[in-house]
Amino acid sequence: MLDIIVILLLAKAFGELAQRLGQPPVLGELIAGVILGGSVLGFIKLGGRGPLSPELSTLLFLAQLGVILLLFEVGLASDLGEFVQVWPSALLVTCVGVTGTFVIVSTITYLFVHNALTATFIGAALSATSIGITARTLHDLGVVRTSTAKIIIGAAVIDDILTLIVLAVMSRLATTGIVSFWQVAKVAGLAIVFLAGSVLIGIPVAPYILRIAKRLRVRGMLTVSAFLFCLTLAYISHAFGLAAIIGAFAAGLVLSKTDDLVHIEDRIKPLADVLIPIFFVMLGVSVNLRVFNPFNPQFSGTLGFTAALIAIAIVTKSLSGLGVRKRGISRLVVGIGMIPRGEVSLIFASIGLAAGIITGAQYSAVIAVVAVTTFVTPPLLRWALSRDHKSTVACTECD
Amino acid sequence: MLDIIVILLLAKAFGELAQRLGQPPVLGELIAGVILGGSVLGFIKLGGRGPLSPELSTLLFLAQLGVILLLFEVGLASDLGEFVQVWPSALLVTCVGVTGTFVIVSTITYLFVHNALTATFIGAALSATSIGITARTLHDLGVVRTSTAKIIIGAAVIDDILTLIVLAVMSRLATTGIVSFWQVAKVAGLAIVFLAGSVLIGIPVAPYILRIAKRLRVRGMLTVSAFLFCLTLAYISHAFGLAAIIGAFAAGLVLSKTDDLVHIEDRIKPLADVLIPIFFVMLGVSVNLRVFNPFNPQFSGTLGFTAALIAIAIVTKSLSGLGVRKRGISRLVVGIGMIPRGEVSLIFASIGLAAGIITGAQYSAVIAVVAVTTFVTPPLLRWALSRDHKSTVACTECD
Repeated sequence: MLDIIVILLLAKAFGELAQRLGQPPVLGELIAGVILGGSVLGFIKLGGRGPLSPELSTLLFLAQLGVILLLFEVGLASDLGEFVQVWPSALLVTCVGVTGTFVIVSTITYLFVHNALTATFIGAALSATSIGITARTLHDLGVVRTSTAKIIIGAAVIDDILTLIVLAVMSRLATTGIVSFWQVAKVAGLAIVFLAGSVLIGIPVAPYILRIAKRLRVRGMLTVSAFLFCLTLAYISHAFGLAAIIGAFAAGLVLSKTDDLVHIEDRIKPLADVLIPIFFVMLGVSVNLRVFNPFNPQFSGTLGFTAALIAIAIVTKSLSGLGVRKRGISRLVVGIGMIPRGEVSLIFASIGLAAGIITGAQYSAVIAVVAVTTFVTPPLLRWALSRDHKSTVACTECD
Repeated sequence: MLDIIVILLLAKAFGELAQRLGQPPVLGELIAGVILGGSVLGFIKLGGRGPLSPELSTLLFLAQLGVILLLFEVGLASDLGEFVQVWPSALLVTCVGVTGTFVIVSTITYLFVHNALTATFIGAALSATSIGITARTLHDLGVVRTSTAKIIIGAAVIDDILTLIVLAVMSRLATTGIVSFWQVAKVAGLAIVFLAGSVLIGIPVAPYILRIAKRLRVRGMLTVSAFLFCLTLAYISHAFGLAAIIGAFAAGLVLSKTDDLVHIEDRIKPLADVLIPIFFVMLGVSVNLRVFNPFNPQFSGTLGFTAALIAIAIVTKSLSGLGVRKRGISRLVVGIGMIPRGEVSLIFASIGLAAGIITGAQYSAVIAVVAVTTFVTPPLLRWALSRDHKSTVACTECD
């Protein structure tokens, strides 16, 4: 319990500090995590070899609930109609971004590590834009309801789906050494069937579920049903071999079409307010600052490698904006919006570390990319937005 | 995650069923727990000897957060002014109830078990009225704001404090065999200092904390500050050797005096809606129905012993109503309101089981008393309320 008190207190303190400095609160929460983590205060220790302590597994579970609620909120805030409208651009942005990042990052990593599996693994890990961090940054900048934001979030969702398919394939490659075309097709097919299915079935069914929920007399039915709906889709998505966050996002999309949207957003917000900061703090906790000490011979190459990774990670994703096909949308803003990496990169890195595909230093390098890309995006995005007034004109419902 | 989906789904289904049958939803949630527990479906298994699994410790933590929020809500709904007004009655009700229950239950238990330590332990375990179940039942019956409810809840709080002092003393007795007068005085003193101190310091200080919170710009500050305030007092209370729920109750009392009461209640409700059912389900999960099989020679005496315990537990607490000194308050209603046992009895029982003071069958007997006292209270209370119209007249703000 003390852990949660300290996490929430520091998260909000640093979040407030970040906001006053013109950075999104999410960055403050990540920094709060780094400070609490093993390499600074050591208040929360991750990465031990043994089984997780009960306290730690509880915190990780709460963090997972946090990212689930984050994606649920992003889904709730999305307008599916507009989403369909920006679909071609989102798909092209994804293709350009993922292909470009994967090819270039893998090639350059290969020059450093001389290992094809490690190189392609790191390339894949850094291919996915973080929906979580991106959505939060767009929300913090007050532009989450613009078409530009729709393209960025839409592309980030497809990124995640693509990358999770690659992850399923690569972890099979790491264990068996063989990948069949059918397995790739199966994972990809499941992902598409799940997302399309849950949205197409969910939209006509959800109002009936809510109508039943409202007819019940016990307290808190709307909160509990919305929460359960989100958790259930997250669970099904997980059972389909996809990330739970994809299901949560689908649940949000479905409920965003119901009449009770405002009430649901209102009831979910307090839960999200408490749980989401825990997720971002726990992301920061994983960072080990020691590997970036250039004077430690063990890690002498890490700093250079990390710097190179960060540079390519930023440049390649910025180019993804070239995929935008819609008029009046700034390619620069979209490209910059695609820069942040997050939870999928971290999931990748931790699986790679456990499977022995990447080293501890490479793991920390990937996490550094996540942290730096998050750090540079808000100022870059603010600069790009002020430079480009068209995107503000295209804004339909700025709040 | 599947655990939480199933728990919330069953909790709400049985809660709704209970409500339709005129019982409080809390009883449905307890039954949902019994069904999920080891002796029926075995979906959630407690009581193994080894360390808790990560999933289970997470569930227990969420349940603990649930009971903390429950007491926080009870505190928020309490009017401290009225609380002070009913103080003498609440204190007398407690003294009559705790002393009567302790002496009579211990004596009768001794006739069954012929062991003074076990007998006094069970007597103490059943002395405390459950604030949680009582408050929820009064809330479900729509009389939580009456003076009668104030006396019952006030007396239940003092019950808990008294019983927790006894627990601290008895667990020391079980380990060392010696108890000094000073240790008893120290535990008792700490409890009184903590409660009086937190309320006396908290009431003038809380508005300043809230004013600072409202000046901050990051989202969800009111939710997070109220939640943190509750958790912090719960933690301090725990550090003082008291139950965390006492601190949560004190936090609610303090914030009930602030101008933001309505907003705080509104923001805490969704958190409470999700977490409180988990607490009641987990209470039900601990019940092992097998020990009540009279045809199993191993447990042949358990059913009779349990029946005797239930009968005395109900009768002795009903007599506590004799302590009421305030005019216009029905002694019968107060006595019946004091019947339910809950979390403190369960904490007692689990510590006694771990220390070898009580057997597994005696443990299940104590839990059966908790379940049955909860089951009989609502119909008895409804009957007593309808029989006594004076208490309805004394109601100031019935909702």
